Amino acid sequence: MKVKILGCYAATPRTITNPTSQVLEIKSHMFLVDCGEGTQVQLRKHKIKFSQIEHIFISHLHGDHFFGLIGLISTFMLLGREKDLHIYGPKGIKEAILLLLKLGNAYTSYNLFFHELTSKESEIIYEDEKVKVTTIPLKHRVYTNGYLFEEKNKERKLNIDAILNYDIEKVYYNKIKYGGDITLDDGRVIPNAELSFDPEIAKSYAFCSDTIYNEEIIPIIKNVTVLYHESTFLESESHLAEKTMHTTAKQAANIAKLAEVKNLLLGHYSTRYGNIELFRTEANEIFENVLLADDGLEFEF
Amino acid sequence: MKVKILGCYAATPRTITNPTSQVLEIKSHMFLVDCGEGTQVQLRKHKIKFSQIEHIFISHLHGDHFFGLIGLISTFMLLGREKDLHIYGPKGIKEAILLLLKLGNAYTSYNLFFHELTSKESEIIYEDEKVKVTTIPLKHRVYTNGYLFEEKNKERKLNIDAILNYDIEKVYYNKIKYGGDITLDDGRVIPNAELSFDPEIAKSYAFCSDTIYNEEIIPIIKNVTVLYHESTFLESESHLAEKTMHTTAKQAANIAKLAEVKNLLLGHYSTRYGNIELFRTEANEIFENVLLADDGLEFEF
Repeated sequence: MKVKILGCYAATPRTITNPTSQVLEIKSHMFLVDCGEGTQVQLRKHKIKFSQIEHIFISHLHGDHFFGLIGLISTFMLLGREKDLHIYGPKGIKEAILLLLKLGNAYTSYNLFFHELTSKESEIIYEDEKVKVTTIPLKHRVYTNGYLFEEKNKERKLNIDAILNYDIEKVYYNKIKYGGDITLDDGRVIPNAELSFDPEIAKSYAFCSDTIYNEEIIPIIKNVTVLYHESTFLESESHLAEKTMHTTAKQAANIAKLAEVKNLLLGHYSTRYGNIELFRTEANEIFENVLLADDGLEFEF
Repeated sequence: MKVKILGCYAATPRTITNPTSQVLEIKSHMFLVDCGEGTQVQLRKHKIKFSQIEHIFISHLHGDHFFGLIGLISTFMLLGREKDLHIYGPKGIKEAILLLLKLGNAYTSYNLFFHELTSKESEIIYEDEKVKVTTIPLKHRVYTNGYLFEEKNKERKLNIDAILNYDIEKVYYNKIKYGGDITLDDGRVIPNAELSFDPEIAKSYAFCSDTIYNEEIIPIIKNVTVLYHESTFLESESHLAEKTMHTTAKQAANIAKLAEVKNLLLGHYSTRYGNIELFRTEANEIFENVLLADDGLEFEF
């Protein structure tokens, strides 16, 4: 599982920082999460093939998370994309994109599917054999969802030595992977535990931005491998965090601690701070495994 | 009169090129013309103060001329702008911007005035004592206008030597600037021609993008100081120019020649061409004073 940070700064794009967007590579999916202005250029800069992106998740409809989406959709069209594209985001996103396309007298060359969200409860919005995506209802100035991406590692690992020893045919391998016992030709039943090992631990990534400090998300993000949590401010500006419905680094660390996550990845820094190391220092007082997102960085878990 | 090119490439923003946007400095105005994605970052990069921009002219609602506008409007808001902002562009622009603001639950801190255009005839859309702005109806795949910016140099230049010689009071200087004769205390009438020189030639800038080759614009842009004309293609791709309703460098030069303009500034190059000098070479076969726009360049006239 890899996370590439295309942009992780709050509010307005600048010459040296980009608004929120990141690519999560998980089980051969490339999920684009949020799409601030300039995201398509960041994708090009980091050589991420446009065709690999089939699902885009938008947390909320503030510009620094959303204003790059129409440009990306248009560029896909200009490049003659044929592959389906799925957009997940708050209700209203479809109306906005379709209006902008209509004004440009433009029609996508590919199928564009909108999955508009309105629920205030956590819900599964995408699922296949390998991954599951669930919303994390957040509290911000507008309707906002975080997203929980979970690997499904149901397949047990084959114990090849034991399998060869019993001379079991390949046709039974899938049965073993899914926990089945095997009956040999002579009638002996070999229990699955003898033929396989436990599956790898499934990894998970929780994206939580933008939000005020909110302990209600803890049951949803419990034990995740990585929690990306916004930390727009430091504690010294906690009054601004409360006023603008954002989080401080200390508060984000507190959520990480209570949810017993493995790693906390901070981002969405206000551009008022010159040195983002201050965020790590503050969060480290409460939680140990703190990572700092920054534009262009890639994290592997 | 100065023109700063923020971006001048067609279709999609890339890491090394920007879509259309330029700032025209004329008679102390800073007019922003078109606003592709990333324009706000280009403005920052070139240290153009946001507060200097009071009028934005959008040619048409294709993304490479328009998708940066909502981000710029939002950033002005986040920075607490108070000064009025006037937007000129095709009908529909207001609906789009207001919808995007509404979805973000955002209200501008300043007055935002939309001047929506629908006419297929050239019309004056802005005028004050020093400048006049007129539309140039263009032919493209959607409703499109170019813009003609003209200085008004009505004031004659004072002949200070003659004025001091006749001992004329300062209170009469404005009368002289506007062509009046002066009656001295002894009754002698001094004709204006003795007290002033002809005014400087008024400069003018015509922005024409995007458009197919269209001789109908010639009467409107006749004799302008600078014609910025799109040249998306070279003649070798004239079939694409026709198909997509764009212009070749040769065609742009032909318009410049027929309109007897002083300078032709080319831009809106397709990114298929590695070397934009090819555009100058082609245009120079027909017209001499060819300048090549490129991102970050400034031209003074």
